[in-house]
Amino acid sequence: RVSLTPHKCNMLGSDQRPPLTGSAYNNVGFLQRTNSIEDKSRIGGALKSPKNLITCDNSDRDLRFSRNETDFSNLYARDLLPAKNGEEQTTQFLLEVVDILLNYVRKTFDRSTKVLDFHHPHQLLEGIEGFNLELSDQPESLEQILVDCRDTLKYGVRTGHPRFFNQLSSGLDIIGLAGEWLTSTANTNMFTYEIAPVFVLMEQITLKKMREMIGWQNGDGDGIFSPGGAISNMYGIMAARYKYFPDVKVKGMSAAPKLILFTSERWLYKYDSVHYTVVLMPSDLEAKIIEAKQKGYVPLYVNATAGTTVYGVFDPIQEIADICDKYNLWLHVDAAWGGGLLMSRKHRHKLNGIERANSVTWNPHKMMGVLLQCSAILVREKGLLQGCNQMCAGYLFQPDKQYDVSYDTGDKAIQCGRHVDIFKFWLMWKAKGTVGFEIQINKCLDLSMYLYTKIKNREGYKMVFDGEPEHTNVCFWFIPPSLRGMPDCADQMEKLHKVAPKLKARMMECGTTMVGYQPQGDKTNFFRMVVSNPAATMSDIDFLIDEIERLGQDL
Amino acid sequence: RVSLTPHKCNMLGSDQRPPLTGSAYNNVGFLQRTNSIEDKSRIGGALKSPKNLITCDNSDRDLRFSRNETDFSNLYARDLLPAKNGEEQTTQFLLEVVDILLNYVRKTFDRSTKVLDFHHPHQLLEGIEGFNLELSDQPESLEQILVDCRDTLKYGVRTGHPRFFNQLSSGLDIIGLAGEWLTSTANTNMFTYEIAPVFVLMEQITLKKMREMIGWQNGDGDGIFSPGGAISNMYGIMAARYKYFPDVKVKGMSAAPKLILFTSERWLYKYDSVHYTVVLMPSDLEAKIIEAKQKGYVPLYVNATAGTTVYGVFDPIQEIADICDKYNLWLHVDAAWGGGLLMSRKHRHKLNGIERANSVTWNPHKMMGVLLQCSAILVREKGLLQGCNQMCAGYLFQPDKQYDVSYDTGDKAIQCGRHVDIFKFWLMWKAKGTVGFEIQINKCLDLSMYLYTKIKNREGYKMVFDGEPEHTNVCFWFIPPSLRGMPDCADQMEKLHKVAPKLKARMMECGTTMVGYQPQGDKTNFFRMVVSNPAATMSDIDFLIDEIERLGQDL
Repeated sequence: RVSLTPHKCNMLGSDQRPPLTGSAYNNVGFLQRTNSIEDKSRIGGALKSPKNLITCDNSDRDLRFSRNETDFSNLYARDLLPAKNGEEQTTQFLLEVVDILLNYVRKTFDRSTKVLDFHHPHQLLEGIEGFNLELSDQPESLEQILVDCRDTLKYGVRTGHPRFFNQLSSGLDIIGLAGEWLTSTANTNMFTYEIAPVFVLMEQITLKKMREMIGWQNGDGDGIFSPGGAISNMYGIMAARYKYFPDVKVKGMSAAPKLILFTSERWLYKYDSVHYTVVLMPSDLEAKIIEAKQKGYVPLYVNATAGTTVYGVFDPIQEIADICDKYNLWLHVDAAWGGGLLMSRKHRHKLNGIERANSVTWNPHKMMGVLLQCSAILVREKGLLQGCNQMCAGYLFQPDKQYDVSYDTGDKAIQCGRHVDIFKFWLMWKAKGTVGFEIQINKCLDLSMYLYTKIKNREGYKMVFDGEPEHTNVCFWFIPPSLRGMPDCADQMEKLHKVAPKLKARMMECGTTMVGYQPQGDKTNFFRMVVSNPAATMSDIDFLIDEIERLGQDL
Repeated sequence: RVSLTPHKCNMLGSDQRPPLTGSAYNNVGFLQRTNSIEDKSRIGGALKSPKNLITCDNSDRDLRFSRNETDFSNLYARDLLPAKNGEEQTTQFLLEVVDILLNYVRKTFDRSTKVLDFHHPHQLLEGIEGFNLELSDQPESLEQILVDCRDTLKYGVRTGHPRFFNQLSSGLDIIGLAGEWLTSTANTNMFTYEIAPVFVLMEQITLKKMREMIGWQNGDGDGIFSPGGAISNMYGIMAARYKYFPDVKVKGMSAAPKLILFTSERWLYKYDSVHYTVVLMPSDLEAKIIEAKQKGYVPLYVNATAGTTVYGVFDPIQEIADICDKYNLWLHVDAAWGGGLLMSRKHRHKLNGIERANSVTWNPHKMMGVLLQCSAILVREKGLLQGCNQMCAGYLFQPDKQYDVSYDTGDKAIQCGRHVDIFKFWLMWKAKGTVGFEIQINKCLDLSMYLYTKIKNREGYKMVFDGEPEHTNVCFWFIPPSLRGMPDCADQMEKLHKVAPKLKARMMECGTTMVGYQPQGDKTNFFRMVVSNPAATMSDIDFLIDEIERLGQDL
């Protein structure tokens, strides 16, 4: 059992659950029954399988599901499709899974549910309440598989909960969820139009729309969805290197001089004197470029960050673009976190100048609430991605196919198999419209302003940087009563450094909320609040502050 | 409208569908109804929301769904959770999506369903039957979103269909599907134990099990799931480079000499004289290593392929390992395609020597039928992945957390956000057991032998390489009647080169089956048959051959 801190945890019911035996399971009241006798004979093959009744008109609306009381204790994976007569068991099993998921979804948005039910690694590894993570040679029954599904969710973290503020990616968008369920059911691969015709076109159309939002003329240019921001940024670097030193592709890095990349945030490559999340100062940048040239290096690439991870600040893209123009450098804008603000007429000015970038990283799985993973690399010059990455694998990209093979995107990617990340995003855009994203994003920024306004002069709080937040990041120290009024001496700093970890541990053990903390440079541990979940409201912000004060009063 | 070839297409019903209007939609017979008056007043807020009835015992079994006849034409994304009183609409909407998906699943396994309903890009872009791919500023109703979901599946390719043989990844495993639906509902990120406690432990346990299958003592070593085989291979290269030249991490490639990588298949980097998918001959490898050294290069890394993409052949790992030992080179085994055979006592000998590898790529999304994406990089020496890739980002990997932070895996990865690829695989392993994977894999290999035996001496077929297939790849030419008995002259080759593309186009237009083709080196276009879908049977192999002969008789 997890040992809770002595702090009383709000809103918690018991985390006990009756053991799930076969009979207990079957005693659960189902709202719906079908004739179980007919059903059993169907399984036995005595009745015609329902598939024989299907017409071939490609309609997906000819069969309607109904749940019954299937006993899963004697059923196994091998009894599901493609097993003979496996249709009914497959339907019932998946409906049972859906029931688990729907309950999870509903509770995630219910504030009386905990954000998490924390356990230490050794506790989970020992097998809490029979939840056995080990793999075996022999199969488990479907009943046990359903229990495993429940347990997996039970001991996880509800990242869609309105009081989960721990990560840049949060929320549980219902349309996005539907999109992801469909994507996994379609289970295909993005490399060719041949096997992903609809998804390939959706990607093309969505990328064009994103380029229009960036401000590239007619939405022209190129792009691809990649497995995340780090890999999108890598694409940007590879495109730049290929543009300036195409021989690297064939001859390797020895074909290029010593290249230098500049960035305001230490994300992929390090440049000695660049400081973590300090905004890139244009004057400093120019001095660094001159210095690098004098040392015999070749400046290649500047990464301007639009929305840094911790502070949420935006580099001054216009000024940086001026310098890139002057020195003929590739300008990449890492808008993984800040890109969403392009959808807001109120906030998009923070990215002014992004239309001058050669490439842009933009992660809809962050500020836009798309389910993880969804990250795009957008490149202004068409053809570079293909030129840089193509290998012309004959077994994938046959030039003699019957359709227009320019739609085969695989040769733009460094990957062969590429997950379908586009559909959930496309479906969300359809369902919300651009205006829906705008409303959602404005709301998140409003909430952050609400928090900032609430705590900036409140007793016990100190802001980490001056001025209003540019993004939804609000960075602050909570100073517990025992440390208030003390001078800013080393001793106090040392004590303050321990406050956030201790408070965070209590939050997690109580399971009531989650918010991230970290040290930064010479600053001791502070909280970084972010809002990207449209489910959060002012009352949740109030709750967070109350909870910090409740859990931190005796620190 | 798509223009079909004059060839009669088997088994096709009409692809017409009545237009879906709001009223037509509501006329569909539902098996189940609830009191719609109560429901409407609930939406209006007159009744207590059902969530108030939820107890806080963390059980996921207290609410049972029931479908009703919701009119989605006046509902929008904004009416779903987290909207006030959005629970019922959310449930109904997701159940409607599930209905679409369940029908899709059932039909995928039904041989009277087409594998695909082919349309050219311009046809889909023009908007067939009102399927509009364009994005707009304004939202669509949920009814339209459901139509979009249906259309997306309708115009896609059923990669789980028993007659889809086009790709190394195929099939639609129901347990894996359930796992992926759960994964997307949990919507979290693998970088820390903090937000993915269960998934992080599942990954650790599964990777250990995979290392045991490889044959590393006690399953020791390291590893991580990555977005695909190309990226797993990249991890292998980075680990090798870090092992031999750790300064590269800080100083860049100029800190290393000119490094040479050897491979039997041109997958990531090219070495001039290495031929595409030709098995790596140990004697040739040794000569190439000596030659490279004489030219002043530094041989670093040998990639042995266990199951090449086109021929499905296995490099002789033992002999290659001997050479790697002799010259102190890193041995990587790319078992993306062949790794699954490790689960089979009958076939695992083909990978003998893999236990001597320094790193291994193994994609369960290929031979093991796990849904895309699921790829692992496994490294024998512990600590290398972390040493090579860690950036110690303070905002993610706080050393002062309350739990054992050695479980935070994020610093092993080049990515920050990392999709949860483990759960579906773990769940499949639970549900099938190791023996279940073994049965499934043996069956696929048996089917390929059946095909090979059937066509090797059959009129009109010629095998591309001699001998039995090592994996499930069977490569062959179909020689239509008009070309039979002609000498192997250039003219015949030119004609034969056009046969596979033409036949493939007819398959796709008829929608009855799909199998890949490609040229290879000096060999004209040939078919590469692969079996990785456990749904396929001997009758499907027979069907494929009949279909090739039916569609190719007049070529």
